[in-house]
Amino acid sequence: MIHSNLTRLRQQADAAIEAFLEQWPRAAGDGLYEPVHYLMELGGKRLRAVLALSAAEAEGKACEVAFPVALGVELFHNFTLMHDDIMDAAPLRRGQETVHIKWDENAAILSGDAMYTLAHLAMVQLPAEQLPKALKLFNQTALEVCLGQQSDMAFETRNDVTVAEYMEMIRLKTSVLVAASLALGAIAADASEERVKLWYALGEELGLAFQMQDDLLDAFGDEQVGKQLGGDILADKKTFLRLYTQEYGGDGARATLANWDGQRSNPAAKIEAIREAMSAAGAVDAAKELMHAHVAKAMASAEALGLEGSHLEWFQFLGGMVTQRTS
Amino acid sequence: MIHSNLTRLRQQADAAIEAFLEQWPRAAGDGLYEPVHYLMELGGKRLRAVLALSAAEAEGKACEVAFPVALGVELFHNFTLMHDDIMDAAPLRRGQETVHIKWDENAAILSGDAMYTLAHLAMVQLPAEQLPKALKLFNQTALEVCLGQQSDMAFETRNDVTVAEYMEMIRLKTSVLVAASLALGAIAADASEERVKLWYALGEELGLAFQMQDDLLDAFGDEQVGKQLGGDILADKKTFLRLYTQEYGGDGARATLANWDGQRSNPAAKIEAIREAMSAAGAVDAAKELMHAHVAKAMASAEALGLEGSHLEWFQFLGGMVTQRTS
Repeated sequence: MIHSNLTRLRQQADAAIEAFLEQWPRAAGDGLYEPVHYLMELGGKRLRAVLALSAAEAEGKACEVAFPVALGVELFHNFTLMHDDIMDAAPLRRGQETVHIKWDENAAILSGDAMYTLAHLAMVQLPAEQLPKALKLFNQTALEVCLGQQSDMAFETRNDVTVAEYMEMIRLKTSVLVAASLALGAIAADASEERVKLWYALGEELGLAFQMQDDLLDAFGDEQVGKQLGGDILADKKTFLRLYTQEYGGDGARATLANWDGQRSNPAAKIEAIREAMSAAGAVDAAKELMHAHVAKAMASAEALGLEGSHLEWFQFLGGMVTQRTS
Repeated sequence: MIHSNLTRLRQQADAAIEAFLEQWPRAAGDGLYEPVHYLMELGGKRLRAVLALSAAEAEGKACEVAFPVALGVELFHNFTLMHDDIMDAAPLRRGQETVHIKWDENAAILSGDAMYTLAHLAMVQLPAEQLPKALKLFNQTALEVCLGQQSDMAFETRNDVTVAEYMEMIRLKTSVLVAASLALGAIAADASEERVKLWYALGEELGLAFQMQDDLLDAFGDEQVGKQLGGDILADKKTFLRLYTQEYGGDGARATLANWDGQRSNPAAKIEAIREAMSAAGAVDAAKELMHAHVAKAMASAEALGLEGSHLEWFQFLGGMVTQRTS
């Protein structure tokens, strides 16, 4: 029953996205919209749209009232993927060629800009009385996401990134949009300012937990699709696990990280050695503990919102998705 | 007196921009905002902001009511410059290094995205009752500007671009934002829908006339700053003059264009030969005629708006800036 809620809301989101994008057909605009359709048709969990719809329903409204914001956050999220993939020189997205590879960088820049504009055109479909509040949050969130990506890039050339800096970076890059998705769904459902804040807090904690899970799954998980296991380790990516190991793992752990830095010739041995160092440093336990703590805080917000019945179960399910998938 | 109006409005625009951007200091955000400050400090005419302020004053309001939209259109315009300069691989902007050269492409992509977001944050400062109308126009215009840039890029690899297609491209890439600047200024001043449409029409015609003037000045002008005379000709750029010459100039003119295509070794001779072909084909006369016709249409809108006194003089001055600078 809870899984069917996910299926139902995802189908609602997909249908809303498809109907909205029909206004800008793939073939129109000298190909401007083609990468937009391509990226959206690659699928994805539609997590942000689903969250916006969920919050509206939990506030006692039909999920349709949240279509403008669900479209807004989902199109915005995919726009950031299109631009981030250029900046990160990523060849693949959801197992398929990224836009800047399939077309070129100019197409990915410009179609991304158009996609961001479409996100705004979705948002302005909101009733006038909700527009100021919703757009202030939407744009403030967008700016924070840019800040998060900027920090992420700045970290690449730094060797002294702290765990605390990393947590702030992922908060900006990931959590604030998850938070805004719920808060915007609540705004679309005319929730009070106090409740909108609780929804935001719920999403912020859930987003941090998701990112912790992502870091763990990349290094130790088994069910990531379209992403190579240990990919972050091989790329020396500054994840929570690596930064924690560096900051708290002592000289031995730091030496292990330094020894393997830049090595690509023996991937299996590198992944194995660094996984061991991470475990020994307590990074894995710390990540799991942090993840559980963020889920617990999210659930505290769900409680403060007074969620009941199927709505409470649904958010418990979302929390469970995080904690149960890592073991 | 009319020139002092330009100075006054430009100073107002500059002060508003400076005060607004102080909220996001250059040093903050891991350098995210630095390219934004850099580009805005390079100056520029602030034409779009000045137009927004002018329309509000002509509607009988203090220009301050139009600060949100003036900031919105000016920041949006500069955001498009930052991204267009990447796409066009332009080394210079206003005589200084472009952002993607001074920093790198990633900085130009991401700071551009942030700048677009700042434009939206400026717009949402509008009173709630004007927000839906203003944002629909703002975002629709943004999408059209993307379409214009897309067409412009698509034209580069085509040999059969018509004069009509070129006019539609520059309408999208340039005129709609000039039009929206005036229309948004009028919206901010609570003008009626009918008057907003007249302001839009005035701006659309003025924008087309400006672009015609730009094409003419590049080939035949003498006072362009920071732009090489004949640069469009040297780069075989598909301007009105070139496309007209190709479409209507006959086989001789087409042969001249084809002969010089891609040649960079004798710039002075190339510019001279192609200028002659353009003049002989009637392209220069056609461009001037078209430019005057668009100014006349703009002035007809000014008349329909019932502009009087200093407001009428001001828009006559703007029209005159177009027609008098080309001779």
